[in-house]
Amino acid sequence: MKNNWIAIDWGTTNFRAFLLENNQVIDRLSEPCGLLSVKEAQFAATLQRLLSPWLDATPPLPIVMAGMVGSQQGWKNVPYAPLPAGAGNLVDGAYAFRTPWGSPGWIIPGVNGTSRYGQPDVMRGEEIQLLGLAVLHPAEKHLALLPGTHSKQARMVHGEIIDFSTFMTGELFSLLSEQSLLGRDLPLQTPHDASFALGVETALQGAPFSHLIFSARTRRLNGEVATEHVHSYLSGLLIGHELAALEAERPAWVVGSPALTARYLQAAEIVGLTLTAVDGDHCFLHGLGLLRSLIQEKIA
Amino acid sequence: MKNNWIAIDWGTTNFRAFLLENNQVIDRLSEPCGLLSVKEAQFAATLQRLLSPWLDATPPLPIVMAGMVGSQQGWKNVPYAPLPAGAGNLVDGAYAFRTPWGSPGWIIPGVNGTSRYGQPDVMRGEEIQLLGLAVLHPAEKHLALLPGTHSKQARMVHGEIIDFSTFMTGELFSLLSEQSLLGRDLPLQTPHDASFALGVETALQGAPFSHLIFSARTRRLNGEVATEHVHSYLSGLLIGHELAALEAERPAWVVGSPALTARYLQAAEIVGLTLTAVDGDHCFLHGLGLLRSLIQEKIA
Repeated sequence: MKNNWIAIDWGTTNFRAFLLENNQVIDRLSEPCGLLSVKEAQFAATLQRLLSPWLDATPPLPIVMAGMVGSQQGWKNVPYAPLPAGAGNLVDGAYAFRTPWGSPGWIIPGVNGTSRYGQPDVMRGEEIQLLGLAVLHPAEKHLALLPGTHSKQARMVHGEIIDFSTFMTGELFSLLSEQSLLGRDLPLQTPHDASFALGVETALQGAPFSHLIFSARTRRLNGEVATEHVHSYLSGLLIGHELAALEAERPAWVVGSPALTARYLQAAEIVGLTLTAVDGDHCFLHGLGLLRSLIQEKIA
Repeated sequence: MKNNWIAIDWGTTNFRAFLLENNQVIDRLSEPCGLLSVKEAQFAATLQRLLSPWLDATPPLPIVMAGMVGSQQGWKNVPYAPLPAGAGNLVDGAYAFRTPWGSPGWIIPGVNGTSRYGQPDVMRGEEIQLLGLAVLHPAEKHLALLPGTHSKQARMVHGEIIDFSTFMTGELFSLLSEQSLLGRDLPLQTPHDASFALGVETALQGAPFSHLIFSARTRRLNGEVATEHVHSYLSGLLIGHELAALEAERPAWVVGSPALTARYLQAAEIVGLTLTAVDGDHCFLHGLGLLRSLIQEKIA
């Protein structure tokens, strides 16, 4: 058991933990117990309860955490690491502590900096997946997409994140499909590839976004998009809008679960972009594994 | 009383009526009694109740209506007039009927066509304001903005609408400020010119929209935008994004109430656009007045 440790991704809505032996997953836990559900800042007690199946080990297992757990709304507000951010910076910025039951713990910082469009930007959690991508697929340069509520597009050089940009793709899809005129009075939706493709192609034509999305209304009115396919069309508009920003730079990686990456692969084909999917958990564990070994070296 | 008539703007959420004598307003009514509130398609009975202060005239006053009253959700689904659309087309496409109390009535059609970005587009009601603008300020060409939930940008030549594009500026502002992460946990908002200007300037830099808006989050996190000014900043982003589309073409008109046009004038100065405000009701009444006189000629 000497080399066993626990890797945790603790976000605002979900808690996921992995028990590792020599960086191989031997058990996993997943609970809808995000940071928002933690009452009165009882983070230690909550973690102890969540990890109870694994806490009989002697000595207590080391725990390495990433994600919103290191934010203002989390356990400890760990200052962001600046760009360029590599494994060394993240280890140096990690918050080290000991849990009430004696486990040595670390919370890895997020990253902040300036996006390639000159805007301030932040991430917490995705930096781990990016490091893992570079471990799994070493290269001089990486261009990676991390789809989600707030998608990230990041560039790495020699395994260091040099910049990244957030795209509110997932949140905009939810808002527009559930709360706006575009999603009003729709029947049960069925996925439809041709409507999705029409959305991607329309987005590539470069209309201003606030005009672009109104086509989900007008194409429904004129019958070009069936009422059951409006979500597919809207998804195409949003992913197409995000991918249009990447056109000149390729090939790229898309990191996430198959459920998240499938539509991106489909859109990339339409855009003419070479996109390769990599499993997000796989990247997360390899990224955190790298940090864990650097921490071990540092404290040895 | 011979030349008296009633002009009506009946939308989904509001009902507004004007009693005119020789095209001068002598009385007005306004009720939060939009088409959505009309039960069981009782449009005639509802109208009779709303207009009751004016219905003792003999003979019964002519009524000319525009807006969503002519849509699928309205009293009568009046087919859209195609582009290019001038006063003649709108009169030809008008639906003529007689109310139960004997008033001759007309519902003016909306307009559909292809936006300058090649997308299908529709409007109902704004075409009247555009005609009125051309009556009030005759010119060979007009470029006009009509701010709102779904803003319109329209081009006219010789008083005919040649194309128009819808921007979901107002609805996006509501969604993002009320329902998204960007508006979460905000204190009471106060208007702030510098934050608005920063939003406009940021939008002009041309970042993809779904990345652009995330700056309302990051600039709040890093203190560049105070929590009480996030709405002003977001408003600047959205209006700046809309105006960026106009950069090359000027001068332009902005048609609406002072409450709607003030921020556009402010943004136009930052963008370097010459924008002149015109009162929306004034345009509406002159546009409908023109149609009313053409209808009179036609039936004379």
